[in-house]
This record gives sequence, C-alpha cells and structure tokens, in this order.
Amino acid sequence: MIGYQIDNETFPTGVPTPYMNSAFLDRLKQKYKAPDTINKIWGLVYWGQLVDSWDDLPPRNGILNPGYKLEWENFQHDVVTDYLAWQAKIVNQYKRPDQFITQDFSGGVHTNLDQWAIAGNLDIVAENPYFETQKRLDARTIWLSGDLGRSLRHTNYLVTETNAQTIGWDSRTQYPQYPGQLRLVVYTHLAAGANMVEYWHWHSLHYGQETYWKGVLSHDLEPNRTYAEVSRVAAELKKLGPQLVDLKKDNKVAILFSADSANALSYMPVSDHVNYITVLKQMYDAVYDLNVEPDFAQAGDPNLSRYKVLLVPPLYSASDRVLQEISDYVKSGGQVVMAFKSGFANEYSTVRDVMAPGPLRAAAGFHYQEFTNLAEPEPLTPDLYGVGEQNKGSVWEEFLIPETAQVIASFEDPYWHSPAITRNNFGSGTLTYEGTFLTDTLQRQVIRDVVKRAGLTGQDQNLPSAVKVRHGRNAQGKVLHYYLNFSGEEQTFSYPYGNGSDLLTNASARQGQAFKLKPWDLAIVAEQ
Amino acid sequence: MIGYQIDNETFPTGVPTPYMNSAFLDRLKQKYKAPDTINKIWGLVYWGQLVDSWDDLPPRNGILNPGYKLEWENFQHDVVTDYLAWQAKIVNQYKRPDQFITQDFSGGVHTNLDQWAIAGNLDIVAENPYFETQKRLDARTIWLSGDLGRSLRHTNYLVTETNAQTIGWDSRTQYPQYPGQLRLVVYTHLAAGANMVEYWHWHSLHYGQETYWKGVLSHDLEPNRTYAEVSRVAAELKKLGPQLVDLKKDNKVAILFSADSANALSYMPVSDHVNYITVLKQMYDAVYDLNVEPDFAQAGDPNLSRYKVLLVPPLYSASDRVLQEISDYVKSGGQVVMAFKSGFANEYSTVRDVMAPGPLRAAAGFHYQEFTNLAEPEPLTPDLYGVGEQNKGSVWEEFLIPETAQVIASFEDPYWHSPAITRNNFGSGTLTYEGTFLTDTLQRQVIRDVVKRAGLTGQDQNLPSAVKVRHGRNAQGKVLHYYLNFSGEEQTFSYPYGNGSDLLTNASARQGQAFKLKPWDLAIVAEQ
Amino acid sequence: MIGYQIDNETFPTGVPTPYMNSAFLDRLKQKYKAPDTINKIWGLVYWGQLVDSWDDLPPRNGILNPGYKLEWENFQHDVVTDYLAWQAKIVNQYKRPDQFITQDFSGGVHTNLDQWAIAGNLDIVAENPYFETQKRLDARTIWLSGDLGRSLRHTNYLVTETNAQTIGWDSRTQYPQYPGQLRLVVYTHLAAGANMVEYWHWHSLHYGQETYWKGVLSHDLEPNRTYAEVSRVAAELKKLGPQLVDLKKDNKVAILFSADSANALSYMPVSDHVNYITVLKQMYDAVYDLNVEPDFAQAGDPNLSRYKVLLVPPLYSASDRVLQEISDYVKSGGQVVMAFKSGFANEYSTVRDVMAPGPLRAAAGFHYQEFTNLAEPEPLTPDLYGVGEQNKGSVWEEFLIPETAQVIASFEDPYWHSPAITRNNFGSGTLTYEGTFLTDTLQRQVIRDVVKRAGLTGQDQNLPSAVKVRHGRNAQGKVLHYYLNFSGEEQTFSYPYGNGSDLLTNASARQGQAFKLKPWDLAIVAEQ
Repeated sequence: MIGYQIDNETFPTGVPTPYMNSAFLDRLKQKYKAPDTINKIWGLVYWGQLVDSWDDLPPRNGILNPGYKLEWENFQHDVVTDYLAWQAKIVNQYKRPDQFITQDFSGGVHTNLDQWAIAGNLDIVAENPYFETQKRLDARTIWLSGDLGRSLRHTNYLVTETNAQTIGWDSRTQYPQYPGQLRLVVYTHLAAGANMVEYWHWHSLHYGQETYWKGVLSHDLEPNRTYAEVSRVAAELKKLGPQLVDLKKDNKVAILFSADSANALSYMPVSDHVNYITVLKQMYDAVYDLNVEPDFAQAGDPNLSRYKVLLVPPLYSASDRVLQEISDYVKSGGQVVMAFKSGFANEYSTVRDVMAPGPLRAAAGFHYQEFTNLAEPEPLTPDLYGVGEQNKGSVWEEFLIPETAQVIASFEDPYWHSPAITRNNFGSGTLTYEGTFLTDTLQRQVIRDVVKRAGLTGQDQNLPSAVKVRHGRNAQGKVLHYYLNFSGEEQTFSYPYGNGSDLLTNASARQGQAFKLKPWDLAIVAEQ
Repeated sequence: MIGYQIDNETFPTGVPTPYMNSAFLDRLKQKYKAPDTINKIWGLVYWGQLVDSWDDLPPRNGILNPGYKLEWENFQHDVVTDYLAWQAKIVNQYKRPDQFITQDFSGGVHTNLDQWAIAGNLDIVAENPYFETQKRLDARTIWLSGDLGRSLRHTNYLVTETNAQTIGWDSRTQYPQYPGQLRLVVYTHLAAGANMVEYWHWHSLHYGQETYWKGVLSHDLEPNRTYAEVSRVAAELKKLGPQLVDLKKDNKVAILFSADSANALSYMPVSDHVNYITVLKQMYDAVYDLNVEPDFAQAGDPNLSRYKVLLVPPLYSASDRVLQEISDYVKSGGQVVMAFKSGFANEYSTVRDVMAPGPLRAAAGFHYQEFTNLAEPEPLTPDLYGVGEQNKGSVWEEFLIPETAQVIASFEDPYWHSPAITRNNFGSGTLTYEGTFLTDTLQRQVIRDVVKRAGLTGQDQNLPSAVKVRHGRNAQGKVLHYYLNFSGEEQTFSYPYGNGSDLLTNASARQGQAFKLKPWDLAIVAEQ
Repeated sequence: MIGYQIDNETFPTGVPTPYMNSAFLDRLKQKYKAPDTINKIWGLVYWGQLVDSWDDLPPRNGILNPGYKLEWENFQHDVVTDYLAWQAKIVNQYKRPDQFITQDFSGGVHTNLDQWAIAGNLDIVAENPYFETQKRLDARTIWLSGDLGRSLRHTNYLVTETNAQTIGWDSRTQYPQYPGQLRLVVYTHLAAGANMVEYWHWHSLHYGQETYWKGVLSHDLEPNRTYAEVSRVAAELKKLGPQLVDLKKDNKVAILFSADSANALSYMPVSDHVNYITVLKQMYDAVYDLNVEPDFAQAGDPNLSRYKVLLVPPLYSASDRVLQEISDYVKSGGQVVMAFKSGFANEYSTVRDVMAPGPLRAAAGFHYQEFTNLAEPEPLTPDLYGVGEQNKGSVWEEFLIPETAQVIASFEDPYWHSPAITRNNFGSGTLTYEGTFLTDTLQRQVIRDVVKRAGLTGQDQNLPSAVKVRHGRNAQGKVLHYYLNFSGEEQTFSYPYGNGSDLLTNASARQGQAFKLKPWDLAIVAEQ
C-alpha cells in the first residue's frame, strides 16, 4: 500500500437540510457578527427582506438573493473542504511516513468546490480525466484536468481513474478505443505531469449501476484486446518510467479561475449557452489549439508575477483587492486578456455603484454605463486578424467609452457602434479587453497576438493541427518533448529543438530533422 | 401623496392548502346547498365519483373533472378580488377625499383573475405594460394592456410600471431602447388613455433578483442617455399635459372576453399551440393592423349595444343567458365575428346535450354533430379575399350544416367539405362564424370585411404599416389624433381630418396635407 | 348478463409505499431465504451495499441496482395478477355456470404486467385495441393487440373497447373515421379471432375527463353518421355472426416475448430511441407487411415446437433454462431470428461471466467480447437482399467472432468490420442472429428469407400493399379468408385459394379469379 485516497469525487449535496441551514446560520454569525451587515451587503431592504435578528433569516430553500446564494455556495465548498481535511487528519495519525494522502477530482474545472483549498490538505492531487474516444479523441479535456490538477499544488499529480474499455451508466455511449488510443492516452497524461495512470477498473462488473463502465477485462474475465494494449504500455513504462516520472513545467501563461464569478454570473446569466465556463473553455481551447501550455491560477493568487500572460474569463464577482492585484500585475508588465463583465460585482455578488468596470477602470482604460444583449451575432470592424465571417461578437455588448484604451475592433450597428475589443497600455503591461463574446476563431487570434507580444511563440505553433506537443524537464534534468498524433493518419513535422533521441524507439532526433508519427502514435524526444 | 396602490400585480397562488380546500368547500355549500347539485352539474356519476356528503368531496389536488376545476378557478379569482376589496376598504377609512386607490395589473389579459370585479373596488385602474424594444418595438402589447385597463371602468387608467432602461430577472434579455423610443412610448400610453406614466424604477438596484431590471439611472447613479430622454419628454408633458390628460374614447368595436371559456378550453385543449388567448390575440392583432381601436367587454356585459361590432374568441363555456344576450345583440343589428367552439359547453364546463352550437343555433344559422382536428393546414375555397396561400384553416374543423347561414368559404377535403366560414343574417344584424382556426391574414380580412359592413372604415386603413393612429377627445373638448411612427425610417402620409396643429411642434395640419414623421417620432394633431 | 369483467386495464402503480416495501421484503424473505443470496445475485458488494439482515435493505425509492429493480418490477406484476385472481375467485362463487369472467388489457404488449399469468385466471381475455383513423388507418396495432390476446390462452378473445367516433382525453386528436372505416375495423377484429366488438361507449359524455372520448352518439344524443354505420354492420353480423365467430388459427410463426428482457434492458438502454419494444414492433411490422400471421409466445414457453419460425427480440435477461430451450428448439429443426444482446444477462439482470452470448454460443455459432455504439447508421456488405441504402445497421454493433456461423453481412468500418448478421446451422435448425439494429427494410428481408426457408410463403406475399389477408377455420369447419382494403382506392388481386364465395355479397370466388375491393371495404371468402 503506497498511499491513501480519502474519499471519491466528493461534492457538496447543496441540500438545505435543517442541520445545514443551522450550520450556515452559525457561519453567518461568526463571519458577519450583526444581521445588519448582511442587510447591507446583500441589499435585503429590497422587497422588504430586512432581518432584525439572525433567526428571522429564511432558510436556503426558495432564496432568490444573489448575495445569499453566493455565501451559501461558498459555505457548501467549505463543508467539503473541512470534511476532507478532517479525513486527512485522521489518516495522518495512522499512515506510515512514506505513504501519501490523495483525493480524486472528477474531470474538468469545478465551480462547486474550492479545489485549491482541498489540495492544501493533500500530499498529492488526483484527477479522473475521462475522455471521448474513437474519432473524437484528442487531449483537450485530458489536459484541462491535468493542467488544473498540476496547478493546484504546482507539482505532479495522479490519474486515479480513466477509460479502460467503454464507459457509461448505461449502454448508450459505449465507444471502445481504436487500437493504439489507450497507449497514446497514457503518454498524454504523463506529458501533462501525471505520475501514475490507474483504470477504473480492473474487470467489468456484472451488476450494479456501472455494469457498462467497463474495466480492462470484459465481463468474461478473459484476456482481450484492451488487456493486450495495457500490457504493452505497462512494459514500456517499466523500462522508461524513471525517465518520465516527475516531469517539471515552467509555464508562462495562466488562466485565472474565479468560482465566485462563475457562480454569481450563473444567478444572472447573460445567455442560455454562454456562461463563465464557456468562456474559460474557449480560452483554454485557444491555447490548446496554439500548442501553448497553460497553468491555472486562482483569483487572489499573490504570485501572478510568475506568468507573462494572464487569461481572465468574466471576473464578474471579485473584491477590490483581487481587482487591484490584477491592475498591479498589468502595471508591472503583465499581459492580460480579459472577458466582458469583469469587475462588475463585488465579492458579495453585489453590483458596484461606480461606473463599470469599477477598480479596473484605469488598467482597462475605458468606462461604460450601458450594455445590450445581441439577438444575433454581429460583425465587427476592422478585421485585424483576417478572420472574415468569424470577425463577430455575440450574446453581449458593453457600450465601452474609451479613455486611454485603443480600439481593436468595433460593432457596426447603426444605432450604436461601441468598441468590441480594446487594448490599454498601463504601466509596463497591457490589458486587452473583450466587451462581447467572440467567435472561437477570433478569440484564438486575440490570444495568439497577445502571446506573441509576450514573446512566447515559436515552432510549436507551426505543427500539423493533429500533432500536439508538450514539454518539461525530467528528474534527471533532461528536457523532454512529447509529440502526440491525435489522428488516424500519419503526420510529419520538422523537429526544432536540441538534438536528442526518441525514448520509445531510440531513433535519433536532430534539429531540423523530419519526424514521422504513425496514426494514434507518439514520440518522446529527450534532449542530450 | 396623491393616492394609494393597495398591492402589486396580485395573483392567486392556486395552491390547494388545507385552508384553501376548506374555504372552497364552504363556498360550495353556500352556492349549491346539496352535494347532489354538483353530482349533477359536474357529472360526478362518471368514474363513480358521486358524493353523498360534502365531506366526501376530494380536495383539489389531482382533480380531473372540468366542472370542479372551473369552480376552483373562479374561487381563486374571488379570493384575490375579496382580498383587494378588503384592502381598499381599510385604506378608504384613512385616506383623504382627494386621494385615489389604485391597483396594478401586469400586462396583457388575465384568465386567472376577474379584472372587472377587482376594478369595481378601485378609483382608477393601473397597468404595467412592459414591452419589447429596439427593432421589435410596436404598440401591440402596450395597447392591449391599455385598451383592457381603460375598458375595465370605461375611463382613463394609470401606467405604474414600464421599461426605463433594460428589463429582466437576469442578464439574458437586456435590450436598451433606441434613441427616441422611450419618448415615443410615453405618448403611446397617453394615446390609449393613460393619465400617468411611471417607471419601475428610479435607479438600478445593486442587489436582489431585479439587479438587471434597470431604472432610469444605471448602477453608477450618474446621469445617462435614458435620464436625458426622460427629462426631455417630462419637459414636454409639463407644457402639454393639460391638453393630453383625460382623453376620452367612443370605440365602436369590442372584443368579448370570457375567462371561463379560456379556462374551460384549457382543460380540453384543441391544440398545443392554439388556445383561447391565441384567437383573442389574433383578433386583437387584426384590429391593431387595421388601425381600428377596440374596447374589451366581459362576457355577460348587459351593454353590448354600445358597440357596432363584437369580436368573440371561442366562447366555449357560457350560460344560456350569456348566449341569449349575444343572440339578442345580433337580432338588434349587431355585427358579430365568432370563433369555433362557441356555445359548446355551459357555465359549468359541461357540454350541452343538444346539437351545437346550442342556444346560438338560430343566430348562427347552422348546426353540427361532428368535428375533426386537422393534422395540417387545409386550403379553403373560394378565396373571397384574395389571400392565396393564406386561404387556409388549421387545427380544428367543425362539420357545419347550414340552415339559414350562407357559406363564405369551405374545406376541400375529398371525404368531407364542410363550410369553414359562414355568415347568417339574423334580425337586423349578422353573425359571421369561423368553424376553424384561420390564418392571421385571413382573420384580418374577415374582420376588415365586417368592420367595413358596419361603416367603421376610412382613411386610417390607408396609413403606411409603420404608422399607428389613435383618436380621442381631450378635457377641453378638442379632438386629438396621435400619429406614431414605429420604425427607424421616416414615414409620410396624408392627413385626412379637420384642420388643426401638431401640439409638439405647433406645425399646422390641414386636411389632405402631406405629413412627415421622423424615425421613432410622432405628431399629436389637435383639431381646431 | 353474459359475463363479468372484473376490473379495467389494471396496472401496477409502482408507488413504493411503506406497505408495498414491506410486502416486497416478505417476498424476498420467502423467495431467497437469506440476505446473502441477494448480496450475491444482485452484486450488492459493489458500492458497499451489502446487507447483513433483511431490515438493512433500503426501500425501493432511489434504488439503482438492476437486480433489485427487476425483482421489484416482477413483484409489481404479481401484485396485479394476485389481485385479479382474487377478484375472479370471488365472482366465481356467485356467477352462473354459463357466465364468463373476463378482464380487459389496453392495446399493445405490456412489459409492466404478466399477461399470461393474468389470463390463466380468466375464462376469456379481452382487449381494448384503439387505433389511428382517417389516412392512418391500418390493421397494425389492431392485430398486435389481437394476436397477443388470442395467444394468451390460444383461443378467441373479446374486444371490450374500441373507437366509435373520436377519442382523446382532450380535444387535440379528434379524428373521426372516414365512411366505411368503422365497419372495416369490425371485420378486422374478427379476422384476428375476436368474438365480440364493443364500443367505449354508447353516447358521448357531457362532463369528466373523457368528454371528448366520444361514443356512438354525439353529445346531442341524436342519430348520426356513426350510428348509421354501426347499425349497418350490426345488421350484417346478425346474419353472418354464426359463420364468423370462434375462428381458429394454426399459426406457424411466433414472436417470443420476455418482459424481463424489456425491463432489464430499460435499466441499461442502448439508445434513447431503440429498445426492446422497438425491435419487437419492427419484427411484428415485418410479418404484418409480409401478410404472415404470428402468435406470441412467452419466454420459457415449453411448447415452442408448435412453431416453425421463432422471432426473438433482444432476449437480454433470461435464465440458462430459457436459453437452453431455445437452443434445443433450434437443434430440433426450429428457425430462429434473434436480435442483439440476447443471452447477455441472466434472470437477475446480472451479466454472465462467460463470453457472450453465454448458453446460446453453440446454437449461435459465435462469441464476442466487445461492442460499440454507433453514432450514425453504418453500411453493411454484401447487400444480399438488394436493399441498397437500407443495407445498414445502427445504434449497436457487437464484435462477433464466428466459430461455426456463416456471415450474411458485415460492417465496413476501417477499424473493425465485424459480422452484422450471421446464420448458424445447429442440429436440424438454424439461428439467424442480428448483432446490430437493422433498418426496417432489411429486417423485413431477413425475416422474409427465414420464413421462406421454413416453407411458409405463398400468394399472400404477392397482394397489393394496401390489402391485408387473414385466414382461419370457422365453427362449421370451413376455411375463411378475410381480404381487407386499407386504402381509399379500389384494389384488385387474384384469389389463389379453393373455390368459395364472399359471405358479405354472396359473389362466387374461384381460384385465380380477379377480385376487386372498394375503398375501405372487404371480402370474406368461405371455401366450399
């Protein structure tokens, strides 16, 4: 036994039981002392909801007030964090010093947990990055989970669950992997910094809800195609493992994550289709497509200066302090790409009573008083990045009034033609702002532009689209380059880094040499 | 303080609490004396639901019987009416004689209230007619609410809430008005007989569910575009108000409203898309498009003779008395346009045991025993109004067998070709009947034809489609003509009424003179 | 009074009341003795759900375990069966010897009842086969109910309810029959073996939920078109009844029905659109289209040998014994057409721990370890039946590995090209297996092929598609041939059987003679 997993994909239930409502009330008393504090910060005067004593506060059921909702949401986060911390404390009393404590997160970025706080109680984070297979296989969701898991403690992480054969709580989405895909994915995990890959589970269950969440073996419990491929990659890892484990990253691009913003915006959504996570994933997809490796940083992270570029999905709910840190980050030379609605509400989900974007106004270089939803996508002008039909904004338009910001692109509506994208030089950095929801293509070009201005582009951006690359330094101090072919066709590219060799084949890799990758295959070049 | 609003958009909850069920039972005992009465009128013998004593009657939850449902619905109406009457009574004990009592209705026509009964307890009715903006702005829903509000007491009404900036319980439908639209709408309200226009609300809220139901001021609490436009129109009203207030109407067309029919038909719907309100709105839209001003009259209104034309949406549930009044109205010279299913069920939502349309048979001049739904719209013949592809019926077809009625158009189906529209001369009036759901275009033509036969058409029907006109007599006895341009393009028309001048510009208006209206602008011509 | 109907379309409620949960626990104690039995057969070890004592077992609400669900489902079946048996027992104590006991089933095949067990307590089964009318009228659903009703006791059945005028719990689907359709349908019932046709109901109700479930008379209670047609057919039956009643069938094709498979598969569905009943109906439609009359047999029926062809929808959940019987049936010369997923799980809904298809492996002549869902329909090759674009499989693909089976058609996917349809000679019979969901056209061709191999095809397969034929022997020992025209056009065909005459017209019918059927009309030829 090498370590302890203290629970499984733990989430808050959100269920407002009498016990939970009572614990919530205790929290409020401790945190806010007097009921009049919440009367003010949540605006309970509206609709005559003022409370004179704590006991007058209605329980969670049916609550509409955004401030109350957000506090409850964070209360639920803390319930899970505290529970896991308590579990970890108990295990710590009994485990051997060489054993670790971990806890697994289901795939993706979670707005109903404080993943950073949970990670603080663990020795190592675990992720369960399940993924789509067959023609739909790529590294997008695998790396989203991996990059987050790695960022939570700035170190390596474990994969405790991932697809063996088919998955599903029923039999409607049974898509076994093509030959080679399972092996390719093992290395995809490692390329992001995983130190272990486990399957859920060894053999398929004959009963229960997960009858079709199949293991390495089928229900017949006999060797099969998947078992053979697991055996192959296991044999490779037995040999190469020491050169692959403990891969270290030094990423210069980060995506800023704010669960408060995701939640507060969900109480006052701008669209049925576009929300905080939509924009976050659009930004993530942009750097994925560009072969740029990102970290995640939590809003309020005091060490933003380790990054050259910060991508900010709608930072809708944030304290003055958090916004000041971003402003300072720009002033000190940071490059920020920031989405609409940032700075609008404070940490209580309450809208600021100054002109938007509040404390970000100087760094952003504009203000606005009005906004409109957009019934249809609307064209922008000029088309700086040559994206043609994709030069559009949709869903939301802020009526930006530039003060010091330059206009990158504007709307063309006859009644109003507000700037849609602006860029402001502030101190020694810049803040690029998107006052609308961009097309995926336009978002990618905006981010490419900013990443390039930060001096972070190179040959990785010239690879065939099916080839993804990831870098790191292994435990022996050698630089590794993973080249992964996410397609059923052979891919060719020119290798641009220092001379070395492919650890899997021992083939030499010289700078400028043409490299071939078979379908669903990979190379791991270790520089000399 | 000029008056008291006693509650806000009060609706019944419909929730069958023990208290409500008990009050309902009391009502039944008082109204029907013996349980055997409801056994008979609701047909409780069916499915063995007979009750021997009042206590055997099951509570509202899960009830399927249409008669029970309709009684419960009207009980709910009365709960609200009684509550508001009680509130009004209390305020009456304290208010000054010069202060008024009002209560606001949310926009539209309500089938879950008895709006006429409520209005009977008020000094003046208030409406909250919110509306769509930008390209979608027109007077359709504004006037629907206004015409209803004015008809409830046959006098002027108040607008207590309407759009200032954007509205919505979230941020998905924030559509600020184009320049000029807010001002245009103020006069649109006045043209329908409003005596006041208030906004919900003064400044945008920073918290609570209505954070994005924005006021005149934005969250920044500073002057803005909307504030400027409100100021402009307020200055105009300060000057012109005395000439605009207390506008009187003498409309000759009415739409007959029957909440019972709407509710009873909803228990036995003919379609997922077409219902009582669909037909009512289609008829309202027709007169809106024709620039004909309608009142609303409640089914059972004893003073129908004040109107020359009566438009009757499906009068599905009505007593013999109500039907007799309509029959008498026709006999005395009234022009009726009546939709399918009228006369089918009595006031208990129970189908009559004589040939349809029951007591309306003589006035309608036909009977029928059968009907069919229509899977697809079906063509009619002949095409009397030249509407081509729009000469169709859909949803419902009654197998009308004319007795004295003429056939205006018939279905063409090879198995049956029933009359779809009939017209019957009865006494000195006519009853035009629609045994199917007409296309909007065809409905407009049928109504245009009847309105013309009643001698109510003129130059108002020749205006450009974007220009709406409304008339009235002001407190000084002068005839006013509002011409409103609901488009972003300049409109021109020939002014057909007596010489006068535009109150807004003082420009003279002579009969036959060409008149121009700027985009989203208006003229108010006062005859000399 | 000729007999007693003991209840009406009785279904289990499924509601897990405390009483029901307690009765369920009693059943488990009796059936399985020790909790450890269900721990094993349902796999409660998974997710830590083991029960040490019966009282630890959670009640039905929220249960996910498929084994538990299936047991509960069958418990519910038994609740209804036991209730009806008890009712029948009481009536038996009082009724006269010449009176019968019946109970009606709503139309179709029911997976939430054990219809065979219920029928065992009745003297005669009743069906309520409602049907679509106007252009949509055919015998498909009428005969599905009739064939099932007849198969439950292998004798004639009653029609206790069927369409008179229009039907519906509201007014959205009121489709009266075309002239002639009501009469045609009466004979359609008789052609399947019905001994009585009753309408629900005599006259239309004026109140209650079924106001628009119209009777023979309309709400006006006067004679009408439907009354006239009922009178016509009643007069015919008064004359011909003795020659038509008690029609006997000797069908050679059966569809195997397994409620367990339908239910177990619904817990682990392969698709949102394709399920057990979808495949059963596809097979039924195939024989309907082919003018082949089928019986239904219950899985576990010990007398399968009476049939030459057995059609098996996905037999997902079945005991070894049931599978062995099918295997033996093939060995003894039976022709089986079997759908995917058959043999996968045992009678507890638990997947077998041997290679699929488990005990069917020898008879099927293949095994498989893997399967995939299909995102889109995929082409098969070769196109043995010349169905072109319809030569496709969808939803599900098993990776069949033939042992002794021949391949009829295979998938073409570049990554895997598994057999889609196989045929295995086993003993003196054959088993044709479909490892995917076929198109309707392909299914019909596969079944046509097998029926032909069984020597069961002839001139019935050459009729115009609108003409359906049914055969039987009447009480006088004469062979009857019903020819029914389900179209609005006259149909002509050549009569291929022994000389006789049409009972309705007395026209003679000679072998090879051309026969004409008017729209929605029929002939009943009695051989001499």
